[in-house]
Amino acid sequence: MRIFNFSAGPSMLPTKVMERAQGEFCDYGKTGCGIMELSHRGSEFTAVIERAEANIRQIMQIPDGYSVCFIQGGASLQFAMIPMNFLKPGSFAEYADSGSWSSAAIKQSQFFGDTRVVASSKDTKYDRIPAFSTWKTSPGAAYLHITSNNTIFGTQYSSFPDSKAPLLADMSSDIMSRRVDVSKFSLIYAGAQKNLGPSGVVVVIIKNDFAAKAAEKVPTMLKYSTYIEKKSLYNTPPTFGIYMIALVTDWIKEIGGLAEIEKINNAKAKLIYDKLDSSKLYKTPVQKDSRSAMNVVFTLPSEELDAKFLKEAKAQGLIGLKGHRSVGGMRASIYNAMPIEGVKKLVELMDSFEKANA
Amino acid sequence: MRIFNFSAGPSMLPTKVMERAQGEFCDYGKTGCGIMELSHRGSEFTAVIERAEANIRQIMQIPDGYSVCFIQGGASLQFAMIPMNFLKPGSFAEYADSGSWSSAAIKQSQFFGDTRVVASSKDTKYDRIPAFSTWKTSPGAAYLHITSNNTIFGTQYSSFPDSKAPLLADMSSDIMSRRVDVSKFSLIYAGAQKNLGPSGVVVVIIKNDFAAKAAEKVPTMLKYSTYIEKKSLYNTPPTFGIYMIALVTDWIKEIGGLAEIEKINNAKAKLIYDKLDSSKLYKTPVQKDSRSAMNVVFTLPSEELDAKFLKEAKAQGLIGLKGHRSVGGMRASIYNAMPIEGVKKLVELMDSFEKANA
Repeated sequence: MRIFNFSAGPSMLPTKVMERAQGEFCDYGKTGCGIMELSHRGSEFTAVIERAEANIRQIMQIPDGYSVCFIQGGASLQFAMIPMNFLKPGSFAEYADSGSWSSAAIKQSQFFGDTRVVASSKDTKYDRIPAFSTWKTSPGAAYLHITSNNTIFGTQYSSFPDSKAPLLADMSSDIMSRRVDVSKFSLIYAGAQKNLGPSGVVVVIIKNDFAAKAAEKVPTMLKYSTYIEKKSLYNTPPTFGIYMIALVTDWIKEIGGLAEIEKINNAKAKLIYDKLDSSKLYKTPVQKDSRSAMNVVFTLPSEELDAKFLKEAKAQGLIGLKGHRSVGGMRASIYNAMPIEGVKKLVELMDSFEKANA
Repeated sequence: MRIFNFSAGPSMLPTKVMERAQGEFCDYGKTGCGIMELSHRGSEFTAVIERAEANIRQIMQIPDGYSVCFIQGGASLQFAMIPMNFLKPGSFAEYADSGSWSSAAIKQSQFFGDTRVVASSKDTKYDRIPAFSTWKTSPGAAYLHITSNNTIFGTQYSSFPDSKAPLLADMSSDIMSRRVDVSKFSLIYAGAQKNLGPSGVVVVIIKNDFAAKAAEKVPTMLKYSTYIEKKSLYNTPPTFGIYMIALVTDWIKEIGGLAEIEKINNAKAKLIYDKLDSSKLYKTPVQKDSRSAMNVVFTLPSEELDAKFLKEAKAQGLIGLKGHRSVGGMRASIYNAMPIEGVKKLVELMDSFEKANA
């Protein structure tokens, strides 16, 4: 039986990518060694990291004047690196609070300096992206930080705010899931483990003009300029993770790029949301205009039914559906690598389960 | 033809480990998913990280009162994390400078505070470990930092200094290559990409009493206490790298642990050093009492012969032998995973090459 893994991350990678990586795991490009056994300064890995970067630039249509970096430590380290580099004394940073990850970013920023929450949906349990008309921004902010998709609460920005301050986005859970105008942003970062590859690498897309504004007194490994100047090879990067990103981005290009990926992702999400909207058993706490195409959160009327649903799902090869402990219920994470067949199978289960438990 | 990769890192992993990882790459433990596709909070990965830690504790005979952490960012991030946590205002840190990596660690420490170089072999081009009798330590240091093996210059501590200050060691290039009395150290760290697995994970072994002395004001992801308290699962760790460490440490246990590994490594190194000592063509700049069993550095009389040697080596399936650009000549990195057959083949080439080019 084919398994469909709805885990919020680390999550499914495209089957074709996994099979290719397996095939050449012990012998990359007839070198007689696996890619993870080869020097990060050798010709083979140099070609890999250059291909990963070129793919990202092409797929996201990144304008000139931006650097693409591969950094370790997860998005959580970015929460600290951003203010360490850009929230200088006498300045202030603005954050929109749309969920747990935004809150974690805010907490790290507060550690470094004046951090202002300009919008929040906390008082409605993060059931929406705060309407832009309510955002209380001020002139002169060092930057404005948003979280484009909220894995735990199942919300996603359908558009981005116009911002005079440099706009920074944590896109960990929806990077390359749809078309985005990169020129609106001064910095985009994303942990790889949802749409791009395994955990252990963060892709950072940073405008060079913005990078140049960073504080001087930052330790080498925590400075964006180190990664920009050394092309992410100041020290040994996570070579296997970057190799996997090269393969995943090859696959995105083969499929037809973000226009096609976006179409497929929207179709996948619509299948589940249509089911939720027509159901009496399932509910979603998420406001319609803020629904995520990546993480669909829904609830059943009781914990007993939750447990029963999860058990039946597992028996049918649908795993990783348990909601985050802070929300409960179910969460179907349907990143790029989840085929529409997996989503159809989930919706069929939702149908039959509703009939049996009406 | 079997390839023997003498790269300084990332480097060879045990063939048995690579083949096992390949076999279960797309289907770990009959889950229908690769281990890198599974949640870091699920039962499968929980068992993996617990096994990796238990193996490390058993193999290195780590006493009670120590934590084992998995941290991203490479040893280079440790160079900053250590003083950030332990070099508090009014205190000072001591470093022994035995090569490029020590120097890099010193530079990061200087960024944070009073950093004193108590011993150095810089004036003899790092051809030795500075004799302990010459070390100028002072009472009250926050810690004393050493680099146990120097990949670039081919030197290694054959014993460790008695230190009143907490002793900290970068063991990136010789961890688990020989028996070490962990109780002498307050902190040991090692990037995985030489003896333990792929790049992208650092193993940190830290004494809990020492960890408790850390500064309070440190960002979450840069605090050792975060990794200790959350068992390296505060955020998503590099799951595949940790899985590979579990497999490599399984393999070390199967072989017979560090007593056996040390015997094999010494035998491998002896083969090459004996050849160097009896040769008129090859020389090593390294002092006898400081020779590394991990990285054997040697030179030929001219760059022409260097190039010729490298070409003939490659033709025989011996790769990665080119010395570091700052030293030149050759470097044979013979970490745990290099079989003695690879070393014998190298020595045979050295023999025949010497005869042909006498």
